[in-house]
Amino acid sequence: MATPAFQRLDVDERRRQLLELGARLFTTHTYTELSMARIATEAGISKALLYHYFPSKQEFFRATLAQAVDELQASMDPPPGLTPLQRLAHSVDAYLLWIDEHREAYVKLLHTAMTVDEVRLLVEERREQTMARLVTGVVGPGNPVPPEARVAVRGWLWFMDGACLDWIEHGDLDRAALRKLLLGTLGGALRAGGLPVRTQ
Amino acid sequence: MATPAFQRLDVDERRRQLLELGARLFTTHTYTELSMARIATEAGISKALLYHYFPSKQEFFRATLAQAVDELQASMDPPPGLTPLQRLAHSVDAYLLWIDEHREAYVKLLHTAMTVDEVRLLVEERREQTMARLVTGVVGPGNPVPPEARVAVRGWLWFMDGACLDWIEHGDLDRAALRKLLLGTLGGALRAGGLPVRTQ
Repeated sequence: MATPAFQRLDVDERRRQLLELGARLFTTHTYTELSMARIATEAGISKALLYHYFPSKQEFFRATLAQAVDELQASMDPPPGLTPLQRLAHSVDAYLLWIDEHREAYVKLLHTAMTVDEVRLLVEERREQTMARLVTGVVGPGNPVPPEARVAVRGWLWFMDGACLDWIEHGDLDRAALRKLLLGTLGGALRAGGLPVRTQ
Repeated sequence: MATPAFQRLDVDERRRQLLELGARLFTTHTYTELSMARIATEAGISKALLYHYFPSKQEFFRATLAQAVDELQASMDPPPGLTPLQRLAHSVDAYLLWIDEHREAYVKLLHTAMTVDEVRLLVEERREQTMARLVTGVVGPGNPVPPEARVAVRGWLWFMDGACLDWIEHGDLDRAALRKLLLGTLGGALRAGGLPVRTQ
């Protein structure tokens, strides 16, 4: 008979496999196309067992998205010893590399986030976290956030999406050129908002 | 009996009234909530007569949107004798003023454009025109368009939407400060893309 510890590992392993399946399904189908019944069939398990792991399709999507974002954020984490600008450049580059390697998933995620309310909420939750991190990077931890910093960072995140969609669609700009453009845009926004731009 | 010229005027006048009604309905209801039957009732005419003017709800929306955009563009048209930067500043200011006066309509339009495919197509059509005008302003008429100019302008239009939504939501930034931020952002994007920035 399996020990409790072994059973626990088994549960984790099943969950990991389900999330892996989720990453595949949600990037090859629209959110609306998929049902919990369909997901259970693809996983080769009963619907009841799937519901045991995830109480709803939205929760399954949330967990799948969280896993993808965690992976992406780990890759964006800059190595120690860099200046603030170098740190941002590193993160933007990792972000662009991830998009480059997951073009279809990125386009589909943006489209689903626009058209399906419950997915938009999840994507916005994550975006708020990114936003908070970036704003802290701009004004320094614990400092008050002037409206210009908030608007500049929020606008810049929208700029990124628009620019990345255009980049994927046309494919005529290399990653380094796009990164330079993105960093220069944020610099321009911050400068125009009277905010300090750390250029080193 | 009315002369043909008078009848013609009557048709134009009815169309004008319908578009006025459309502007009111589409900014107070979601696109999905409205039906041609509901619109006809609100207009006090038969559904058949409404279809005589507009063959579908999408066409009615297209005409309503076109009228609003034409009005907005007329207000954005800069007076003669300005430098390119002054012209852009004038247009951005008129755009922000329009949004400030039509906050709910703007938020609803952006939301509908995201969630309803047939509306997104119409909004994207208009956006492509704005995009083409701006890109021509950046590279000069008849000149080739480097990818950096296209990505910078497209990204900037997204930036505008994100920044304007934030501006409406928080209301803690005046129009002049937002305009300065928007112009500085475009300047930063163009400069980073190695494009000429006309600063006068």
